Amino acid sequence: MTFPLTSDRQSVAHVRVRYAETDKMGVVYYANYLVWFEVGRCEWLRATEFSYRQLEAEGIILPVIEAHCEYRRPLRYDEEVEVRTRGTMLSPARLRFDYEIVLSGAADPSAVGWTEHCGVDLQGRPRRLPPFVRRLFA
Amino acid sequence: MTFPLTSDRQSVAHVRVRYAETDKMGVVYYANYLVWFEVGRCEWLRATEFSYRQLEAEGIILPVIEAHCEYRRPLRYDEEVEVRTRGTMLSPARLRFDYEIVLSGAADPSAVGWTEHCGVDLQGRPRRLPPFVRRLFA
Amino acid sequence: MTFPLTSDRQSVAHVRVRYAETDKMGVVYYANYLVWFEVGRCEWLRATEFSYRQLEAEGIILPVIEAHCEYRRPLRYDEEVEVRTRGTMLSPARLRFDYEIVLSGAADPSAVGWTEHCGVDLQGRPRRLPPFVRRLFA
Amino acid sequence: MTFPLTSDRQSVAHVRVRYAETDKMGVVYYANYLVWFEVGRCEWLRATEFSYRQLEAEGIILPVIEAHCEYRRPLRYDEEVEVRTRGTMLSPARLRFDYEIVLSGAADPSAVGWTEHCGVDLQGRPRRLPPFVRRLFA
Repeated sequence: MTFPLTSDRQSVAHVRVRYAETDKMGVVYYANYLVWFEVGRCEWLRATEFSYRQLEAEGIILPVIEAHCEYRRPLRYDEEVEVRTRGTMLSPARLRFDYEIVLSGAADPSAVGWTEHCGVDLQGRPRRLPPFVRRLFA
Repeated sequence: MTFPLTSDRQSVAHVRVRYAETDKMGVVYYANYLVWFEVGRCEWLRATEFSYRQLEAEGIILPVIEAHCEYRRPLRYDEEVEVRTRGTMLSPARLRFDYEIVLSGAADPSAVGWTEHCGVDLQGRPRRLPPFVRRLFA
Repeated sequence: MTFPLTSDRQSVAHVRVRYAETDKMGVVYYANYLVWFEVGRCEWLRATEFSYRQLEAEGIILPVIEAHCEYRRPLRYDEEVEVRTRGTMLSPARLRFDYEIVLSGAADPSAVGWTEHCGVDLQGRPRRLPPFVRRLFA
Repeated sequence: MTFPLTSDRQSVAHVRVRYAETDKMGVVYYANYLVWFEVGRCEWLRATEFSYRQLEAEGIILPVIEAHCEYRRPLRYDEEVEVRTRGTMLSPARLRFDYEIVLSGAADPSAVGWTEHCGVDLQGRPRRLPPFVRRLFA
């Protein structure tokens, strides 16, 4: 098994912009895109009959170690948005997810970004991810 | 010891309105007042050389069982705000905090509210609060 | 037309608990229920082929003047939740929404609450709500 | 005037971790670091007798066009945190801020990151920043 392993699968999660997510500029506040990224990666994992909750039940968590976002067009209250996610296994203990935030019906993303994660146990020690995680990327 | 026991002490916590806390109406989003209430009651507890973190270390948490807020005047980005808090012990297991949200220098509160809390252990069972909590209200 | 006018209609919005919405107690942080209430009332208004965005386009906003929530059972990450909403017109300028937060498949609500709103124009002056709003409650 | 222009000035803003900012992992949720970055850059601007609010009064806003964060050590409820910020003017219309999130008393940052901003008018068109902004970086 050689890394990185990028899955062909792209998941799509749907969110509708909440009033709480806007700011006084009238558009979505920039930190909320990272919340949507998390919605996106949960959907990606869920679509594999695996959920993040399940991984936690095994005593492994996947904290974010790096996050990045490029904001191209603002999004507004009540708009419907797709969070398109792809996953890559970078090493036995590290994952990366790539995101596109797309206004429903639009050709180009309003924002793009990625996050990197490292498997750790509940004491915070790095841990190889169990085989069922690896299979998601095969 | 008869209930309710209301402490004479009022704590004051200072917050400055964050951009993230505004919404597209240009004012503070209504749910964020409950976040400030929490800042207020932590300050109230801290001022007694007791912190909520300490209570948790004893295996007791104080979840909110009821919350209420009246919004009288909007607050805006970058404004300095005082969170004035008073505490009442309603029964051996229940507390209430009363809050005033006051724009610095203003005579009247911009909002007022209260929360009620019940001591529970980590399994969610109601628990009498330890004596050091009771003394705060004496 | 006599007030209060309570519509028979109940809307149901679906939310799934986000990681961002949990706190260190492992359950949904209490202020986030007010965010869900807002999701609920938007859905209620949308279901009438009327949206809050449309009202704003007419120069009227509906700020919350009072909010209340009772927390009965905690909710956890990834759970699916229904936000059931009913609307009442209290007077020509005031509305009330009642909410039930129900874990999917559960018999009883995990939380219940309500909000009161007053129609104001962009200068903050109270305004009677336009006839198309009143018809929603007829 | 040649770009980039990096100011020597570093501002320090103080935040205390709020309960609302933690997640079920027991640590600060990753999107909240971007909220703190915003607190940091407001402080940086305020310390120059210039505030972001003042810029908005001139009809110019500074939306984030890119954000990045590296998470090195988790932060926990009630901890006191410094947000250390430096500013750079990249071009007549673009700014960059660099942040260090440091647990009070610690030698090394718990997280580091940066944001890039572009001056735009209220119609969203790019705008050169007014001279008083440039002087901040001289």
